[in-house]
Amino acid sequence: MTTDKLQFGRITLAGAGPGDPDLLTVKAMRAVQTADLILHDALVSPAILALARPAAERIFVGKKGHGPAMRQEEINTLMLAAARAGRDVLRLKGGDPLIFGRAGEEIAAARAAGIALEIIPGVTSAQAAGAAIGASLTHRDHARRLQFVTGHDRTGALPQDFDWRALADPVATTVVYMAKSSFAPLAAMLCGKGLDGDTPAVAVMDASLPSQRILRSTLADLPAQLAAETWPGPVLVLIGRALDA
Amino acid sequence: MTTDKLQFGRITLAGAGPGDPDLLTVKAMRAVQTADLILHDALVSPAILALARPAAERIFVGKKGHGPAMRQEEINTLMLAAARAGRDVLRLKGGDPLIFGRAGEEIAAARAAGIALEIIPGVTSAQAAGAAIGASLTHRDHARRLQFVTGHDRTGALPQDFDWRALADPVATTVVYMAKSSFAPLAAMLCGKGLDGDTPAVAVMDASLPSQRILRSTLADLPAQLAAETWPGPVLVLIGRALDA
Repeated sequence: MTTDKLQFGRITLAGAGPGDPDLLTVKAMRAVQTADLILHDALVSPAILALARPAAERIFVGKKGHGPAMRQEEINTLMLAAARAGRDVLRLKGGDPLIFGRAGEEIAAARAAGIALEIIPGVTSAQAAGAAIGASLTHRDHARRLQFVTGHDRTGALPQDFDWRALADPVATTVVYMAKSSFAPLAAMLCGKGLDGDTPAVAVMDASLPSQRILRSTLADLPAQLAAETWPGPVLVLIGRALDA
Repeated sequence: MTTDKLQFGRITLAGAGPGDPDLLTVKAMRAVQTADLILHDALVSPAILALARPAAERIFVGKKGHGPAMRQEEINTLMLAAARAGRDVLRLKGGDPLIFGRAGEEIAAARAAGIALEIIPGVTSAQAAGAAIGASLTHRDHARRLQFVTGHDRTGALPQDFDWRALADPVATTVVYMAKSSFAPLAAMLCGKGLDGDTPAVAVMDASLPSQRILRSTLADLPAQLAAETWPGPVLVLIGRALDA
């Protein structure tokens, strides 16, 4: 990690996984342990940040709920300036940076600046949720396709321009990230497009963490059950016949 | 891992990730290092198996190309018998066991036998391929949906009953696992369903390993280019506008 840092510095863009520090990859753990500067999101758990060197600088650059967020240009500026100053910069995101991690702008910024960027993938929360409920996401008798969408567009609302027919496919497993506020209208749309209301649907909060919660239900019933809960963390919903196999 | 093994044994079903031992999760690495018996597939790299204790028994239970495979019932029998004998059994699969890892039958067998099963997710090859090509799989300007399919059905042929319209969606990123032999007819179908022939398409072999190969092309041109290569390893193809962002 440090061979050329005196001259150029470098940026590592790594996934912190779903939350349990043991679900970090070995490579990401080493990056956390050796970085000079860690720029992290809200979804990176405190137990993971605790692995950093005492001398490492840690800066929270995420958005939490509707609270203030550092603007993307500010994050890019901070990240590039530190790398140019010869520091080992770790941009650490929850899950996998390439799956709903909004890494595109940061990859482009590093590339435009000519700074070496290494990407370390991470276990995304859909995978930890599958492990928590003990179901293959692609059980070959029940799922021919696995698809991930997010329940939020840039404005925080349910995207209206989804390919709804693709999401209502009865032989797919669908995972909806950030599903808390938008799952009810999404479920209604899927039922309207012909997906059976008794299709298994499972909500998972904080997969892999001690605070993990699981709610097993059906597409028709989950919206009301989820609304009756007051889960504080981010919620992911999995939908499909494979979940009951 | 060993607290109750004298009484019951246990089974751990873990993902070995895409190949680089550093992309194992910390938890999976520990499981490899402590298991009494490791039942592994062809896609688990030798460098990962080398992490096992010298006293650990390692049995190859996978299928390689068209060579002989241990039947699923035999794997289940072996796995359950060893667990019942009090051994720490690790069922180790390439990538993530829940994503095209055919874990369904083994989960069901352990459950039916009343044997404790822990599932450890792993980085799947699509994630390592995304990291290798340096592209967000869900760039928010270009991909509203990320979908994974396999190019093989149980018979080894391209599945004919895909939801082709869902796969031809121009604002999705599609990852085709095991795409080597079936990518040409798949690409032809996607073009026939209206997906633009100049949509970026990238083939990746052995993502994360020293033998990694990358071929960047388009949906129209990749089939011929891929056919001209003689890549020995499994090939994954990524398709979508996000790959060029």
